[in-house]
Amino acid sequence: MTLILGVDPGSRRTGFGIINAAGNRLEYVTSGTIHLPANESLPPRLKVIFDSLTEIIRTHCPQEMAIEQVFLAKSPSSALKLGQARGAAIVAGVTQNLPVSEYEAKKVKQSVVGTGAASKAQVQHMVKTLLNLPGIPAEDAADALAVALCHIHTQKSLINLASGQGFRRGRLK
Amino acid sequence: MTLILGVDPGSRRTGFGIINAAGNRLEYVTSGTIHLPANESLPPRLKVIFDSLTEIIRTHCPQEMAIEQVFLAKSPSSALKLGQARGAAIVAGVTQNLPVSEYEAKKVKQSVVGTGAASKAQVQHMVKTLLNLPGIPAEDAADALAVALCHIHTQKSLINLASGQGFRRGRLK
Repeated sequence: MTLILGVDPGSRRTGFGIINAAGNRLEYVTSGTIHLPANESLPPRLKVIFDSLTEIIRTHCPQEMAIEQVFLAKSPSSALKLGQARGAAIVAGVTQNLPVSEYEAKKVKQSVVGTGAASKAQVQHMVKTLLNLPGIPAEDAADALAVALCHIHTQKSLINLASGQGFRRGRLK
Repeated sequence: MTLILGVDPGSRRTGFGIINAAGNRLEYVTSGTIHLPANESLPPRLKVIFDSLTEIIRTHCPQEMAIEQVFLAKSPSSALKLGQARGAAIVAGVTQNLPVSEYEAKKVKQSVVGTGAASKAQVQHMVKTLLNLPGIPAEDAADALAVALCHIHTQKSLINLASGQGFRRGRLK
């Protein structure tokens, strides 16, 4: 049993989701959206991200954390805001001694939907299906669960590769 | 006596400096540069910023923190990196219950050198002079001390304004 925390940080909302990867079974644990106070200055907003994620980690005790890696932001200003939120989220993980893995958005979509060009709605739909949820999770929570799923798939592939199952075996003629 | 912690965050090096503002006297307390491990991934690097600043805060017990505000970054990629470092630094302050104030780089230079277009070397020189240091502090430490000085000047102006000393008094004819 391994609990994975996925985080989708943003300067207005930060999504989180926890999945239990028990062998080949995937079990939904929790997910949600941290809403940052719109009228506050940056420091108390970052504190909300840090405090909320710290509380979630202390409550559910995940063993690993996964977060989306960002390469292309629209503008320097939005990149700075996103970076600040990411910084606060990553620090929440590392101060609770979680190893934090980063995944490109394209890889997350590829891993969950099968194509790196998937829409937000497709990601939400596939997260619902893969985790057998009764309803569609909100956008940020779905993105957080998707990055956790991507981490689980990636880890599993690495284990399979290491044990030889990932190699196609040819027949000697 | 008020101890002010100034921080100049960066993705390679983060400068810090503490000044004691005792009435009209300014007293240098400490300063330095936190070097981030170049070969590590982002999460442990952000942990170094967070842990180092937390240790500095716990050791010296400053009452307030000041940090440079960034408006224009060179590129989205450098803005993201800077944002992550800023996020980790600000979270270190707010989790130790310090009020964190942000100041534009231009305002910091204006406040320390007298012109918003001052060079790095001018800032270093004026920080040395204002704090009566025996030598020139390193660039990032000087920037951190400069933002602490800017915060002290700004607070003092606000207090003067509130007590009426900041207004020019005309004589009634």
